[in-house]
Amino acid sequence: MDQMTVEKELHVAVVGATGAVGMQMIKTLEETNFPLTKLTLLSSERSAGKKITYKGKEVVVEVATPEKFEGVDIALFSAGGGVSKELAPEAVKRGAIVVDNTSAFRMDENVPLVVPEVNENDLLHHNGIIANPNCSTIQMVVALEPIRKTFGLSKVIVSTYQAVSGSGVAAISEMKEQTKDIIEGNEFTPQVLPVKGDKKHYQIAFNAIPQIDKFEDNGFTFEEMKMINETKKIMHLPELPVAATCVRLPVETGHSESVYFETTQNGVSAQEVKDLLASAPGVVLEDNPAEQVYPMPIHAVGKKDVFVGRIRKDLDQDNGFHMWVVSDNLLKGAAWNSVQIAGSLLKLGLVAK
Amino acid sequence: MDQMTVEKELHVAVVGATGAVGMQMIKTLEETNFPLTKLTLLSSERSAGKKITYKGKEVVVEVATPEKFEGVDIALFSAGGGVSKELAPEAVKRGAIVVDNTSAFRMDENVPLVVPEVNENDLLHHNGIIANPNCSTIQMVVALEPIRKTFGLSKVIVSTYQAVSGSGVAAISEMKEQTKDIIEGNEFTPQVLPVKGDKKHYQIAFNAIPQIDKFEDNGFTFEEMKMINETKKIMHLPELPVAATCVRLPVETGHSESVYFETTQNGVSAQEVKDLLASAPGVVLEDNPAEQVYPMPIHAVGKKDVFVGRIRKDLDQDNGFHMWVVSDNLLKGAAWNSVQIAGSLLKLGLVAK
Repeated sequence: MDQMTVEKELHVAVVGATGAVGMQMIKTLEETNFPLTKLTLLSSERSAGKKITYKGKEVVVEVATPEKFEGVDIALFSAGGGVSKELAPEAVKRGAIVVDNTSAFRMDENVPLVVPEVNENDLLHHNGIIANPNCSTIQMVVALEPIRKTFGLSKVIVSTYQAVSGSGVAAISEMKEQTKDIIEGNEFTPQVLPVKGDKKHYQIAFNAIPQIDKFEDNGFTFEEMKMINETKKIMHLPELPVAATCVRLPVETGHSESVYFETTQNGVSAQEVKDLLASAPGVVLEDNPAEQVYPMPIHAVGKKDVFVGRIRKDLDQDNGFHMWVVSDNLLKGAAWNSVQIAGSLLKLGLVAK
Repeated sequence: MDQMTVEKELHVAVVGATGAVGMQMIKTLEETNFPLTKLTLLSSERSAGKKITYKGKEVVVEVATPEKFEGVDIALFSAGGGVSKELAPEAVKRGAIVVDNTSAFRMDENVPLVVPEVNENDLLHHNGIIANPNCSTIQMVVALEPIRKTFGLSKVIVSTYQAVSGSGVAAISEMKEQTKDIIEGNEFTPQVLPVKGDKKHYQIAFNAIPQIDKFEDNGFTFEEMKMINETKKIMHLPELPVAATCVRLPVETGHSESVYFETTQNGVSAQEVKDLLASAPGVVLEDNPAEQVYPMPIHAVGKKDVFVGRIRKDLDQDNGFHMWVVSDNLLKGAAWNSVQIAGSLLKLGLVAK
């Protein structure tokens, strides 16, 4: 193996390689020329044996077992919380650093929850597992962090407009099939959305479902609580008032968010917020009402950035602002943020060689 | 004419009879058994001559001209602001009371802006023209009014999820055709949405467009300013802080709204708000997270009520609450509210006989 002679060899594993996010992880590693020398693709028994092309070579997907993590430097997990809870500690035991894209460890106080544009240095205190935040949280904090840094942040209220791909490939298929059935006048029975494991399923085509993930006892959904708790943790603002309403739409990919926020500082203008976001890392400002320029999911698909527009000052609250934030939920919301974290680990010299 | 012998004859005209709202007005007059003895259907020259069946009889649509309002008691207008500005004063001059479903007169201080569940008595001060509020405003104030009355209201922030039928029949066709084209892999060119008369047009199928109506200089759209200004006027709360972000979705009919509001009174519980709304006029409470019961556009279509659910107390703000409000934008949002106003005019003895 020629690769053994490379000075800095790097063995990366992707767990959940055949899922909606897993496939994007592989594509992102390839497109960003991630400096790996060996790629191991893992999945459940059901998907094992599939072949995935990486840089022109076929890689066979193997069943994820503890032994497969021997020699792995970085393992990107996106195969559901159950798999992460079982296998992430096994991977860490064998010397791998895990970047986990499930909710399994996100609120664990020993696990950094990282969006590189916001809190890259939290990686310095990792204990083997690093959590990748929820998709809807990531794009919001990328847009809010520059504001927090410059003007302070004292309140956030968000309503989301989320794409079905956030719920996996089965949800994408369901939306497409349902749409076709409605157009052709066929009967159909919803079986996946809003939540595969919940009691009832509703039509997503030409509808809006105000439920993402299961309900908590406080009336908020788990998705809403993820946005609330993760935002506080990532931004190191445990007392920040954050509220969320999360809604699923008939959009394939690209989450949108209507975000209201208040700054600590008074007298800030909308133009100052726009100027700030125009040069913020990971943000692309798309804000020109006169020319009808604003972010939309169909324009964000396939792009790594967070698109922000419709920035305007509240008409009553001097420190209140509204903005519209859109990003590809499979990229910055998942795969790209995970690969970015892997890159940050290398940059910070945290991968043992 | 037998009708001449009826004690209380009532001549109703519908202007814009062939439009998305006009057709619903006729259907609603029929279904609610509105006590009219003569129905005149008016439209532009382009649609005149069409035949519409009302209670089993064909009515020929005529060109709307000033003379057509001779003898009309109540004229329901929904043919665009330009038509209303030109013909509503002509109808009034001839003794008709106009219920106008455009934005032409809504903010005119001599014109009552009425949602019967909220401010029916404002009709007592009319001067011939009564304005029917914007669809997205109506459903929100129906849900907010009981709260204002009982607990006081000190702030409103709303993000909308609006259906294409709010933009007329051409928008409905565009969404359906586009969806079909995408599924079949055909090329298409958006031509109607987000705003027919604006410079650019965007794909609505599988997308979310954060623009409804044209932009104002303050960065808000006209739709957003309508929600803001109309809410204050209808609720008689000129100082109420209201903010809105309005978004168009690939939903045919049924607007949804994520509403954050603050009560003047502290210590109110979510259960108290639910109990209040459960018996509020025009409201149907659909709020049982344990059973995944919440309002959705597909369930609201064809119904006259405003459906409210997902009511929960903010986790940080003691007087803050979130709710999800859905209604058929063509019915309570337009046609039904107009017919309700006509009914209130009769009930209050305001139609001269």
